[in-house]
Amino acid sequence: MTDTELQSLIDRSLFADLGYIGADGAPAIRRVFCVWHRGIGAHLISTNTSSGHVRALFEHPEACLYFADSEAFEGACLTGRAVPTRREDYRRLLWNDGDEKYYPLGVDDPDYTIIEFIADRADYYRYDGKGTLSKDELQTMDADKAFENGYRRCCAEQEDQTEG
Amino acid sequence: MTDTELQSLIDRSLFADLGYIGADGAPAIRRVFCVWHRGIGAHLISTNTSSGHVRALFEHPEACLYFADSEAFEGACLTGRAVPTRREDYRRLLWNDGDEKYYPLGVDDPDYTIIEFIADRADYYRYDGKGTLSKDELQTMDADKAFENGYRRCCAEQEDQTEG
Repeated sequence: MTDTELQSLIDRSLFADLGYIGADGAPAIRRVFCVWHRGIGAHLISTNTSSGHVRALFEHPEACLYFADSEAFEGACLTGRAVPTRREDYRRLLWNDGDEKYYPLGVDDPDYTIIEFIADRADYYRYDGKGTLSKDELQTMDADKAFENGYRRCCAEQEDQTEG
Repeated sequence: MTDTELQSLIDRSLFADLGYIGADGAPAIRRVFCVWHRGIGAHLISTNTSSGHVRALFEHPEACLYFADSEAFEGACLTGRAVPTRREDYRRLLWNDGDEKYYPLGVDDPDYTIIEFIADRADYYRYDGKGTLSKDELQTMDADKAFENGYRRCCAEQEDQTEG
């Protein structure tokens, strides 16, 4: 896969699977809504502060983020760190009209948290082969990029579904 | 979710996400074709002996298997052990006409391996709440069951896509 094809896989995904170490020390997975990306190597996910995976990530931030398109037989597993944060700029960036139904106190609701995932490596797979991008390669590729809603950019005709 | 609804989520899924500990000790995920189930707690997955996740599971069989329906906001994370095996009965059970394109030497191809996943626990999530089934509960529920292709049973009208 080219870098452009890998970015397309990430951008057209509404969801990703977050892999982490659960409370019992065993591997665990949670599907998360994930549309805010800075290139290939950095991703923001809004979630409930009180959720089990946030508690687990405070203990063990080592995690992976997996984007897959089963129909296209494409997958990318990013390995790195997933850190829960209450950074105000991230909270405001990801907030949408209507999110009050999840977080009644609004953007400052203490149950509203952002997970910042930063990849140290990207392993990708497709029917025609596989490959790896290193941390240095990811940093070089993403150096001049800012966080943006990739799904909104790639799939604008469905924009009414892309908030988040 | 009721047990029946949980079984439905598993049966109508063609794929699941296998979470495991990768070669570097960090969490990793691989999407796998997964239609052979014994109830909720046991699953068989055919794969290449030479693949990275098989090598990793030989080192660390502790794993999870995640079934999710993003549209229905349903997910189930099974935690347990994923053990690669060359058991002949499993290899024959999962073999399909045409698999020679993946395994040229047929059902005895040394690159053809079955991963047997046995859950110690099932955690499930839906818009209306979450819950857990213990190992004892899973064993009681699945006691009289045999491995079968759940997708073929649940979604017979699409049977031409269900081999595997």
